[in-house]
Amino acid sequence: MSTKMIENVAGRMVPTEINGKPAIPFQGVNQYAPTGRKAAPPISSCVNYPADGNKVVGSLKEALHLCGLRDGMTISSHHHFRNGDLVSNQVFDAVAELGVRDVMWFPSASFPCHARLVDYLESGVIHHIEGSMNGPLGDYCSTGKMRGLGVLRSHGGRYQAVQDGEVHIDIAVIAAPTADPFGNANGLTGPSACGLLGFALADSQYADKVIVVTDNLIDFPCIPWQIHGNHVDYVVVLDKIGEPEKIISGTTQLTRSPDRLLIAELTANFVREAGIMKNGFSFQAGAGGTALAFAIYLKEHMLHDGVKARFIRGGSTQYLVEMLEQGLTDYILDGQTFDLEGVRSMRDNPHHVNTSPFTSYNFHGKGNFASILDCVVLGATEVDVDFNANVVTHSDGKLLHGIGGWQNCLFSKCTILPIPSFRDRIPVIVDRVTTLCGPGELIDVIVTERGIAINPLRQDLIKAVSGSGLPLKSIQDLKKEVEDLCGGKPEAPKLGEKVVAAVKWVDGTVIDSVRQVLV
Amino acid sequence: MSTKMIENVAGRMVPTEINGKPAIPFQGVNQYAPTGRKAAPPISSCVNYPADGNKVVGSLKEALHLCGLRDGMTISSHHHFRNGDLVSNQVFDAVAELGVRDVMWFPSASFPCHARLVDYLESGVIHHIEGSMNGPLGDYCSTGKMRGLGVLRSHGGRYQAVQDGEVHIDIAVIAAPTADPFGNANGLTGPSACGLLGFALADSQYADKVIVVTDNLIDFPCIPWQIHGNHVDYVVVLDKIGEPEKIISGTTQLTRSPDRLLIAELTANFVREAGIMKNGFSFQAGAGGTALAFAIYLKEHMLHDGVKARFIRGGSTQYLVEMLEQGLTDYILDGQTFDLEGVRSMRDNPHHVNTSPFTSYNFHGKGNFASILDCVVLGATEVDVDFNANVVTHSDGKLLHGIGGWQNCLFSKCTILPIPSFRDRIPVIVDRVTTLCGPGELIDVIVTERGIAINPLRQDLIKAVSGSGLPLKSIQDLKKEVEDLCGGKPEAPKLGEKVVAAVKWVDGTVIDSVRQVLV
Repeated sequence: MSTKMIENVAGRMVPTEINGKPAIPFQGVNQYAPTGRKAAPPISSCVNYPADGNKVVGSLKEALHLCGLRDGMTISSHHHFRNGDLVSNQVFDAVAELGVRDVMWFPSASFPCHARLVDYLESGVIHHIEGSMNGPLGDYCSTGKMRGLGVLRSHGGRYQAVQDGEVHIDIAVIAAPTADPFGNANGLTGPSACGLLGFALADSQYADKVIVVTDNLIDFPCIPWQIHGNHVDYVVVLDKIGEPEKIISGTTQLTRSPDRLLIAELTANFVREAGIMKNGFSFQAGAGGTALAFAIYLKEHMLHDGVKARFIRGGSTQYLVEMLEQGLTDYILDGQTFDLEGVRSMRDNPHHVNTSPFTSYNFHGKGNFASILDCVVLGATEVDVDFNANVVTHSDGKLLHGIGGWQNCLFSKCTILPIPSFRDRIPVIVDRVTTLCGPGELIDVIVTERGIAINPLRQDLIKAVSGSGLPLKSIQDLKKEVEDLCGGKPEAPKLGEKVVAAVKWVDGTVIDSVRQVLV
Repeated sequence: MSTKMIENVAGRMVPTEINGKPAIPFQGVNQYAPTGRKAAPPISSCVNYPADGNKVVGSLKEALHLCGLRDGMTISSHHHFRNGDLVSNQVFDAVAELGVRDVMWFPSASFPCHARLVDYLESGVIHHIEGSMNGPLGDYCSTGKMRGLGVLRSHGGRYQAVQDGEVHIDIAVIAAPTADPFGNANGLTGPSACGLLGFALADSQYADKVIVVTDNLIDFPCIPWQIHGNHVDYVVVLDKIGEPEKIISGTTQLTRSPDRLLIAELTANFVREAGIMKNGFSFQAGAGGTALAFAIYLKEHMLHDGVKARFIRGGSTQYLVEMLEQGLTDYILDGQTFDLEGVRSMRDNPHHVNTSPFTSYNFHGKGNFASILDCVVLGATEVDVDFNANVVTHSDGKLLHGIGGWQNCLFSKCTILPIPSFRDRIPVIVDRVTTLCGPGELIDVIVTERGIAINPLRQDLIKAVSGSGLPLKSIQDLKKEVEDLCGGKPEAPKLGEKVVAAVKWVDGTVIDSVRQVLV
């Protein structure tokens, strides 16, 4: 594959065509104006569906066959089971048994549990993957062996791509902890409960055919119907669709590192000192160890100052649930439950609310929730002196992470990246990020164990915390300090010429590309 | 207007073109296969919406102007406030003030409170109405004075028409008892609480522009968001959007007529004797006096026999809420709350579930709820000897009622029409219904005070109740008995040649037309 490349306004070389379709280079934040109309799924008719509402068929294979699966189609799945997903691998076993090849897999994310799908990439059953590739599949992509280009999209960008018709899903497979024979489904109950199914929303709405797979079939109606059976073609019952102990993310462990705890504390202090933490405010923090610690420090400040939030955005964990139950917030608006307390709370508490990439993140909607947030706390693998950030590759160039909601969250009123200044003796603050995922103009504050750098574009924030005693530094000073400590800048990654993946911006344009890593 | 007419398979003359668009004649139940794709709304971008999520503008007039209102556009509204709606009239006052003409009004239903819109039909502000016209506007349409053709659609047919692109809504105005500045909205709380907003769902999803109008603006987030703010362009705050005492339908009065009570009792007895009333069954009954009485008799049978329903479909009333609270059903699946008890229950009880024309009735979905129901109890203005039924016109030809969910409900496993055999000394059972709304093959049982007629197509039902002691009669015998009593058949209505309205079937084809009534 020889891909024609063009330099976009961020100075990044990006392909002009991705997997056979023309691609638009990134044009700057808020610069691209979409035209045209949303994707239009085929009109169905009740005539073609069982009047008694029973859409159960005997197996995944049968359902895929009935959906008209053939070579070159696109099959989608969601990642609410995270590393405990037992369905996606079985889907491709069935595809292989049906003798179908060159399928594009369009997961909302893939995990180490999907490592054995490398065999299907090698054998030709799967052509390529568009979607987050956490771990082994990302590593495989980095080697340059995948036939098509990996395409990395944010959660909102994935909804946008489906909504706008950039990605056409032929068959969506939606693993559902509870479902009824009509296809109504939710993630709240059953042995594989994962909380919600929002990542499969676009798939249910726009795919030509939709298969719901469950290990907990109940009588109609399945309440609530997070997925509407009215979008579903077939229902398949399997013995087990997820491994509960692995559904709960391994990332939801509080950090014990003194440096990370310091970073978290500084972040919470910044939010308080900058005047963001006030009655009726809102924030979002991820489920990583530092973010969790941040939430705990912030909670202490809120209790101390008698401040109550209007809403907290999840990824929910026991820590956020405690804040809700202790009256420290009116609502949790949740896109993903990260532990069983999150699942329980969403199931039982009407103030713990199910959201989706459509409500929260879709940039091609009439607004979304992300920009309403007062502050958001996110991670990054690298940050550069212009506050640009990377979240998908490491400094060695390897593609090992998805974007998640990260890009979408950058539209918050204050975006804070609490990050260690180095990892494994490699500086995290660099001259130029290996892969550009988030433009610096949207990143307001970098908090490290060695000090806090505020983006000069945000003079308001600089002014707000002046005299607060917070350890403010310029990002250049921070960088120099870390380089001195680590013995210099990170080594340049050993990259080939071949482009292996494209990184989309929230509006569907291409913000950067990822090149093959030479071993 | 000279309309070309054609005879459809039901033997009814229907127009081949409706308001400038080609129309497909009814092809028989389950015979029409739609082709093509759903309507595709324009792609929006967050760039064009306020980042802080505040979409509030100063007035309805301003919002309509900002939406780009111009001559000939279509404006839609919903009827959850029924005869207490204070918004639709104000919308057209604003349209008139803006000097805009020839607007098509596309309400989910209109009521006597909208009678003064006749002035706008006369002055040219409104071109014509497509939607249920209950009372004065139907009467006006019957006179032949409306410029365009009235188009009557069922609740599901309205969703289908919007989804399939048969009706393009330029601007949807959604009156919402509670909303936030982002446009998230619900009907559960606030001084004008009406329960839910399902009739506005299609409008929110498919209209080019959406205005939410509320008299109860709360901080983001408005939970639950029955209408997603992500579909909303502008929010307008008015002093008062509905008159609560009129929002509650006048139809939800238990009948006191001994004949009607008898009919209701016979209907409940039929449901029991036919074996429909068993554990896990489901039923739907409207909010008319006889239907309410039916539910009460059925409840007595259920209590007596120890039978519990899986779900009851509402239009909910205090009677259904009692059944839910007494454990006689697992769920109420509700499309419309008819009294304050219904509103309260939907707000507070997770087993009282908000449904929409999409989930319940849309015939161009992958199935819908209506056909899953074990039985449904509906009204009719006329029934003929082939079990065809009319629900929109009276025997004098006057168009005075909408279709509601009536046509959609006919797909239930057992459709029962409990009706008086005559009204005002005019027989209700006739040779040929004035307007065909429901094909006889879908209507299973007619229950009158003079006996029960079962459709000969349903030998299974006839067998099930044989020996039950129920007063079974042939429909011909019933008709003769009533004609003898009333002194003959109803007088033929005095109709002109002019077609004033078309009646759509659930699949968008034209099942009948309504002609001008000569005064």
